[in-house]
Amino acid sequence: MLRNKLIAEFIGTYFLVFAGPGAIVIDQITKEITHVGVALTFGLVVMALIYTFGHVSGAHFNPAVTIGFLVRKDISLQDALYYVLVQFAAALLASYTLLLLFGNVANLGATLPRSSAAQSFVLEFILTFVLMMVILGSAVHGKAVKGFAGVAIGGTVGLMAMFAGPICGASMNPARSLGPALISGATQHLWIYVAATILGAISASLVYKTIHE
Amino acid sequence: MLRNKLIAEFIGTYFLVFAGPGAIVIDQITKEITHVGVALTFGLVVMALIYTFGHVSGAHFNPAVTIGFLVRKDISLQDALYYVLVQFAAALLASYTLLLLFGNVANLGATLPRSSAAQSFVLEFILTFVLMMVILGSAVHGKAVKGFAGVAIGGTVGLMAMFAGPICGASMNPARSLGPALISGATQHLWIYVAATILGAISASLVYKTIHE
Amino acid sequence: MLRNKLIAEFIGTYFLVFAGPGAIVIDQITKEITHVGVALTFGLVVMALIYTFGHVSGAHFNPAVTIGFLVRKDISLQDALYYVLVQFAAALLASYTLLLLFGNVANLGATLPRSSAAQSFVLEFILTFVLMMVILGSAVHGKAVKGFAGVAIGGTVGLMAMFAGPICGASMNPARSLGPALISGATQHLWIYVAATILGAISASLVYKTIHE
Amino acid sequence: MLRNKLIAEFIGTYFLVFAGPGAIVIDQITKEITHVGVALTFGLVVMALIYTFGHVSGAHFNPAVTIGFLVRKDISLQDALYYVLVQFAAALLASYTLLLLFGNVANLGATLPRSSAAQSFVLEFILTFVLMMVILGSAVHGKAVKGFAGVAIGGTVGLMAMFAGPICGASMNPARSLGPALISGATQHLWIYVAATILGAISASLVYKTIHE
Repeated sequence: MLRNKLIAEFIGTYFLVFAGPGAIVIDQITKEITHVGVALTFGLVVMALIYTFGHVSGAHFNPAVTIGFLVRKDISLQDALYYVLVQFAAALLASYTLLLLFGNVANLGATLPRSSAAQSFVLEFILTFVLMMVILGSAVHGKAVKGFAGVAIGGTVGLMAMFAGPICGASMNPARSLGPALISGATQHLWIYVAATILGAISASLVYKTIHE
Repeated sequence: MLRNKLIAEFIGTYFLVFAGPGAIVIDQITKEITHVGVALTFGLVVMALIYTFGHVSGAHFNPAVTIGFLVRKDISLQDALYYVLVQFAAALLASYTLLLLFGNVANLGATLPRSSAAQSFVLEFILTFVLMMVILGSAVHGKAVKGFAGVAIGGTVGLMAMFAGPICGASMNPARSLGPALISGATQHLWIYVAATILGAISASLVYKTIHE
Repeated sequence: MLRNKLIAEFIGTYFLVFAGPGAIVIDQITKEITHVGVALTFGLVVMALIYTFGHVSGAHFNPAVTIGFLVRKDISLQDALYYVLVQFAAALLASYTLLLLFGNVANLGATLPRSSAAQSFVLEFILTFVLMMVILGSAVHGKAVKGFAGVAIGGTVGLMAMFAGPICGASMNPARSLGPALISGATQHLWIYVAATILGAISASLVYKTIHE
Repeated sequence: MLRNKLIAEFIGTYFLVFAGPGAIVIDQITKEITHVGVALTFGLVVMALIYTFGHVSGAHFNPAVTIGFLVRKDISLQDALYYVLVQFAAALLASYTLLLLFGNVANLGATLPRSSAAQSFVLEFILTFVLMMVILGSAVHGKAVKGFAGVAIGGTVGLMAMFAGPICGASMNPARSLGPALISGATQHLWIYVAATILGAISASLVYKTIHE
C-alpha cells in the first residue's frame, strides 16, 4: 500500500537526517562524538532503518536511490515522485527539528566540500555509484543473501562517511544534503550533492544492467 | 513460563545497567574508554542480550518497551507489572554493585540533561519513539527478517547513545535511568527519563498500529 | 574427530592470544590503536574465529568455557582435558611469538588489576558469568537463532573489554591470561584470572540449568 | 560467466584499494579519521563487497586469496590468471584516482614496515594465513553458516588492520600493496607484501587440506 510505504519513507528519512547530521551538530557543541562516532552513527542508522522498514517501502530514504531504481523500472514514475517528495519533506522537517533544539550550529550538519567543488563532485559520484552497486548486489541480485543487505548497506554508508566524510561530507543522498542546506541557509554547494549523487546512482543502475541482464 | 521470563529480564536488565552505566563510571576513573567506547558498550550489550534472552522473555529490559507492548496487548497487564518490577529491581542492584565496586563516581552513570530539561525531554521522546518503531518493525512485523532484530535494535541503541548521549544521556529506558539516580542520589531529573521514554514508546505503538493494522 | 577439534582449538586460541594481547603490545609501542581499538580487536577476533571453527570444535578457545560445558556434560572429561591443554599450549606459543616479534613490551598484554585484587576478582567473575550465559543462551538454547551466536559472543567479549578492560583487563579466559603472564613473568595476579573466570563460568552453567531444565 | 566475474573483481578491488588506502591518505590530510577509523574502513569495505559480489565472483579482490584457492583447485589456472590481472589493474587505477584527487600524499596509502622487514614479513605471513583460514572455515567449509562469511571475513580484515596496521600495514593482499606502491613510487618494500601474503595463503590452504580432507 503506497500510504504505508510513504509513511515508512517519511519516518526513515526523518530519523536518518535527524541522527546523522544531528551527530555533526552535537559534536560541534560537545566535542565528544569525534568524526569516528559521527561516521558510525550514519552507518548504524541506515542499517537499523533497513531492518525496520525494508519490508515496507524498500527503505530508500534517498532520492538518488529511488531514481536509481526508477531507471531499472523497479518503481513506477508516480511512486518515485511521491517517494522523493516525502524524502525531501522529511529531511526538511528533521533539519528544522535540529534547528529548534540546538540553534543554527555547524550549518545543521550540511555537507560542504573541504576543498574544490570538482574534488567533492568526483568523490560523491564514486561513493554513490558504489552505494547503489552494493544495494543492487546485496539486496536485489537473485543469488544475494538478502538478510544481510542491511548490514552491507549500512556498513557501506558507515565506511563512506568514515573515509570520505572529512573531504566531501559523504552525502550520497540529495535529501540528506538538502534538509540542512535549506534550513541553515548553506545552499551554495547543494548542487554538487544533488547532481553527483543522482548521476552516480543512475550510472550504477546502468552498469549493473549491462552486467547482469 | 513466567518465572523463566522474569529471570531472563532480571539478568538482562542487571547486566545492561551494569555494563552501560559502568562504562561511564570507569571512563570517569580511567579516561580510557571515551564517549565512542561508552556508546559502543551500550549498543553491543543490548545486541548480545537480545540473542541471549530474546527467545525466553522477549528481551525488553526496559519498562518503556514493556509498556509499549502492553498498549498493543502483546503482553498481559499482570505480566507487564512483573516485568517492570523485576526490571527496576535489577537496575537498582546493578547500580548498587557499581557503587560497591567503584564508589559514587559519575553519579553511577546517571542520565542528566546537559542543558535544558525541555531539550532533553524532546530528545528522549524522539529517541524512544524511534527505538520502539525499530523494535516493532524489525522484531514484530510479519515480514521482518527477525534474526537481524538484535543487530538492528542493538545498533539503534548504540547510535542513539553515540549522537544524543552527550546532550540527554540517551536513556530511552526508565530502569536504566532509575537505578543510577536512586542509588547515587541524583534524582532531580529522573522524571524526564521516566515520562518522556514511556510517552515515546506508547506513541510509537499507537502510530505503528495506525499504519499496519 | 578429536584431532581436528584440537587443531581448531589450537589455531583459534593461538590467534586470539596473538591478536588481542598483541593489540595491547602494539598500542604500547605505537600509541595508535587506543583502548577502543584494543577492545574492538578482542571482540572481532572472537567473532571471526567462531564462524571459522564453531562447526569444528565448538570454538571454546577458553578453558573456563570448556569447564562450563563440562559441568553440563556437553563435553567428556577426557576431551575437556585435551581442550584445556591445547588452549594453554596455544596461548603460550602466541605470547612467545609476541615476545620474539616485539620484545617484552607491556607484559605481552598480560591482564593486571588496576586497583585491588578483590575488585578485579568480582569483575572477572561477573564478566565470565555473563559471557557463559550469552554462550548458552545464543549458541546452545533450543530456540536460539544460532547463526547469530558469533555476533552475540564476539560482541560480548568486545563490550566487556571496552568497559571493564581498564580496571581488570577483561580476561574472562584463563588461557588468555596465562600465556602473557608466564612468558612475560608477570604472574603475580594470575590466580585471579584463573579462579574468578572458572568460577563465573561454572556458576553460569549451574544457574542456566536451574532455569532451563 | 567469466566476464561478469572479472567485472565484479574489478569493481570490488578498485573500491577496496580506493576506500582503504584512501582513508590513510585523507587521514594524513585532515587528521580526523584516526587509526581506528582507517581500520574500520578496511573491515567494512571488505564486508560490504562480499555481500555485493560474493555470489558473482567469490569476492576475492586479492591475488593471495585467488592463489590460495588455486592451490585447492577451486579455481582453474586460467581463471586465476585473469582474476589476478584484473585485481592488479583495478588496484593501479584506484591508486591513480587517489593521486588525481589528493596528490601524492602518504604514499597513497602504501604499506611500509615500521621497523624491520623481517618483523613485517612474519606478521604479514601470520595475518594472511589466518585470513585464508577464516575464508576457508567460514565460507567454504561444508558446515559453515555461510551467510555470515562476509561478517567474519570483513571483521578479520578490520581487526588485522586495527592491531597490526601500525607495524606492517596489515596488507594481506598483494594488489592492495602494489597499487599505492607503484603509483606513488614507494616500491622498496613491496616484495614483503607480495611474498609473505602469497606464502601465508598457500600455507593456510595446505594446512586446511590436511585437516579437513
